[in-house]
Amino acid sequence: MKKLTDTQIQQKLNELKTWKLNSNHQIERQFEFKDFKESMLFVNLVAYLSEKLNHHPDILILWNKVRLSVSTHDAGGITDLDFKLATLIEENLTIKRI
Amino acid sequence: MKKLTDTQIQQKLNELKTWKLNSNHQIERQFEFKDFKESMLFVNLVAYLSEKLNHHPDILILWNKVRLSVSTHDAGGITDLDFKLATLIEENLTIKRI
Repeated sequence: MKKLTDTQIQQKLNELKTWKLNSNHQIERQFEFKDFKESMLFVNLVAYLSEKLNHHPDILILWNKVRLSVSTHDAGGITDLDFKLATLIEENLTIKRI
Repeated sequence: MKKLTDTQIQQKLNELKTWKLNSNHQIERQFEFKDFKESMLFVNLVAYLSEKLNHHPDILILWNKVRLSVSTHDAGGITDLDFKLATLIEENLTIKRI
């Protein structure tokens, strides 16, 4: 998996909109929920999706907030796989509203 | 719930041993597992226990590592409740080995 250039990352972030680059050079999004239980339901969805993709985000749970940060350790940067995971999570966000 | 003094915190950490004070003035322990799936099983156990206690740690999942940090926001510091949660988690650690 090839590391993306800064320009490529910026292009993809422009498409994804809700994600941003963090100070650790990962792509990141923070989600907010009603309470801790809802956060945990979401984290378990993310766990399921990231196991499917065999690519896992760093996950920080702060009661009703969940912060996901993604990069590709093996490539030493951000790759297409990171955006694939972020997109997969975005596409499945509605599940939590069923 | 009354904030504990630094001396009280240190006494309790001496008993608990595996937990330490972090730079955010929370008590913290990092756990290490085989892989992401095992981390998630543990995080769900922690979620269950903290719901029971109605007191929730900050949870950071880094693939096979889970870092728990606990303080009491309402008290603006560390209280007995934080040590109660930490102790409850320690007591239930063996569950993941069943």
